[in-house]
Amino acid sequence: MSPERPTHTARRMADIEPFHVMELLGRARELEAAGHDIVHMEIGEPDFGTPEPIIERARQALTDGHTHYTPALGLPALREAIAGHYRDRYGVEIDPGRVVITPGASGALLLALGVLLDRDDELLLADPGYPCNRHFARFVEGQARGVPVDATTRYQLDAERLSAHWNERCVAALVASPSNPTGTLLERSELAALAESVRVRSGRLIVDEIYHGLTYGIEAETVLAVDHGAFVVNSFSKYFCMTGWRLGWLVAPEEYQREVEKLMQNLFIAAPTLAQHAALAAFEPETRKILESRRAEFERRRDFLLPALRELGFEIPVEPRGAFYLYADCSRFGDSKQLASDLLEKAGVAVTPGLDFGNYRPEQHLRFAYTTSMERLEEGVRRIAGFLRVDNH
Amino acid sequence: MSPERPTHTARRMADIEPFHVMELLGRARELEAAGHDIVHMEIGEPDFGTPEPIIERARQALTDGHTHYTPALGLPALREAIAGHYRDRYGVEIDPGRVVITPGASGALLLALGVLLDRDDELLLADPGYPCNRHFARFVEGQARGVPVDATTRYQLDAERLSAHWNERCVAALVASPSNPTGTLLERSELAALAESVRVRSGRLIVDEIYHGLTYGIEAETVLAVDHGAFVVNSFSKYFCMTGWRLGWLVAPEEYQREVEKLMQNLFIAAPTLAQHAALAAFEPETRKILESRRAEFERRRDFLLPALRELGFEIPVEPRGAFYLYADCSRFGDSKQLASDLLEKAGVAVTPGLDFGNYRPEQHLRFAYTTSMERLEEGVRRIAGFLRVDNH
Repeated sequence: MSPERPTHTARRMADIEPFHVMELLGRARELEAAGHDIVHMEIGEPDFGTPEPIIERARQALTDGHTHYTPALGLPALREAIAGHYRDRYGVEIDPGRVVITPGASGALLLALGVLLDRDDELLLADPGYPCNRHFARFVEGQARGVPVDATTRYQLDAERLSAHWNERCVAALVASPSNPTGTLLERSELAALAESVRVRSGRLIVDEIYHGLTYGIEAETVLAVDHGAFVVNSFSKYFCMTGWRLGWLVAPEEYQREVEKLMQNLFIAAPTLAQHAALAAFEPETRKILESRRAEFERRRDFLLPALRELGFEIPVEPRGAFYLYADCSRFGDSKQLASDLLEKAGVAVTPGLDFGNYRPEQHLRFAYTTSMERLEEGVRRIAGFLRVDNH
Repeated sequence: MSPERPTHTARRMADIEPFHVMELLGRARELEAAGHDIVHMEIGEPDFGTPEPIIERARQALTDGHTHYTPALGLPALREAIAGHYRDRYGVEIDPGRVVITPGASGALLLALGVLLDRDDELLLADPGYPCNRHFARFVEGQARGVPVDATTRYQLDAERLSAHWNERCVAALVASPSNPTGTLLERSELAALAESVRVRSGRLIVDEIYHGLTYGIEAETVLAVDHGAFVVNSFSKYFCMTGWRLGWLVAPEEYQREVEKLMQNLFIAAPTLAQHAALAAFEPETRKILESRRAEFERRRDFLLPALRELGFEIPVEPRGAFYLYADCSRFGDSKQLASDLLEKAGVAVTPGLDFGNYRPEQHLRFAYTTSMERLEEGVRRIAGFLRVDNH
């Protein structure tokens, strides 16, 4: 039987884009396979492996035979540890019953949007932003409405823009602090203003806090300090260096607990068991010490890369104070997609073109990730400098 | 700021039901906490832990520091191992490029339905069946159309019923072989007839093969032997005893590869890394030997439980030859929900009422899982017998 039948594809798939950087990464791998050396400044995960105390806890869980499903909402001990983390780190009291352990922050977003968005309902979010967010909305037949943001609001949605773009189809707004790709944060007063602005419109605020912990000279504020009606998405991937474990969490408002639990059961059954046991070690002092030294290393990298790129002529008007990204205006050097391709082919440096982060001036921006060693960053900057001298001067 | 805003919940949530058995399980745990002994015949996962060679491979992966993301479609070596599994076990050649490693079979189903179902598109499936299937369809704003099935087709959708229920909104049909909750299989000729029936209607067949390997006196046939245009959902959870690892796979038709990859990137980033490395040991002879001895143990349990329940007056008209479930007509003893509650409270035996599996005569059926030891099954049968004698005679 041959598959000559027509290929019926759901219409949503026309709106769901691939990660454009994957093509570039594929080409980078080809170049590497051909013997070229590539400096990777495109990668959205820490170069550090998972801290040893977490690994050790996973080993113990293997020995103890923890290979079955956990309850849908997660290991009670881990939900309590996360509630404790909010108490210790932010001074915020959270009922552990509101914490849902999810398969990555991706799982948490799918739950939040699944319980909130009806077909054609709209989700407001900042453009540029993490590309999957709008695809999650589209996946459930909702619609993301990107709000162009720039340096005047530190690339963040603010209450003014929110009220200007809110319409009767809007049910929620999503912000990220620190933001991918811009590395900027929302202050507590800004979170409170956004929360209030959404609240008076009977909407919900969703805050992506997955880069919390990775901040430099500033502490990230959780929206839970100002709005217990918000949904918080978080993850063990970034600060805790557990990307491959696929573990995150959602803090949902109390009145949504039952709905979130139903969805969690049906969509995922439960988050990975071993990862949950391992993550019990994530909040221990020994682990914290390791993570804080890594945070300091990310800070050193940012402190090197930010002035170095500005020196080369990239415009980064707002100081990025979190995550591990710099979002740079490269317009004086031409179109960002072409530039990214040239940097890869001619200078051996991989960076991500703005295309992956939205529709607002993507051709003018590149994202530089400092998820590689200082030595490699220095080498990358040397190569970029050499390329720009030859090419533009 | 108090959460006095109205609770806007997406309409889909009214159609997405919780696992009813969870309530019963919660009550069982209460009873256990109060000192009562409960025989668990409601649990849908193997009581066996993950085989040691898989555990050992996970230990090695921890030591080797495999804690970062894998490619979105999964570790190439694992995709190849799965293609090898189709060659060795079924004599079917599959391009490893068609194999996508997913976070559980749940992830695979979400991908398949995400690329196939537009809003209001319909998915035909057997009722009774795995409850999450219809919720996955609803999640993406599609609609599952349950087709009542009974002993006359071994509780399976057949080509005749499919053509009787297909309408212009239908884009796909989903069957499971072996089936949860009925444990029955589709023969190769039946799969071929279903495939042809769907094909001529320009639809797609999705086959849930997650209980493959757990069959008794019969080998399960893969739809890939008769239809390369089908979507196959499979899992390391059941036969391979890896439930908590959250690892499955999808074999997608070649012409959908690009769409599936986009969705995989966006929804999940990738499946859990450690689980993928561990699963590399799943197809090794040493592991196979362990799994086959467990299969034999499940068969012994079935061979005990099936006649024992029939003897007690439960009707099981078709011999279940796969998975680890018996779906029994309990109508002579009353409503299944009440009966399940009574069995738990008065006899200390937990079973799942039909309610969890669809809308076709759920009140007449109970699902018995033989995912506990022979001794416990014997004890369970003794208790049920005692309860029925006291209660009904």
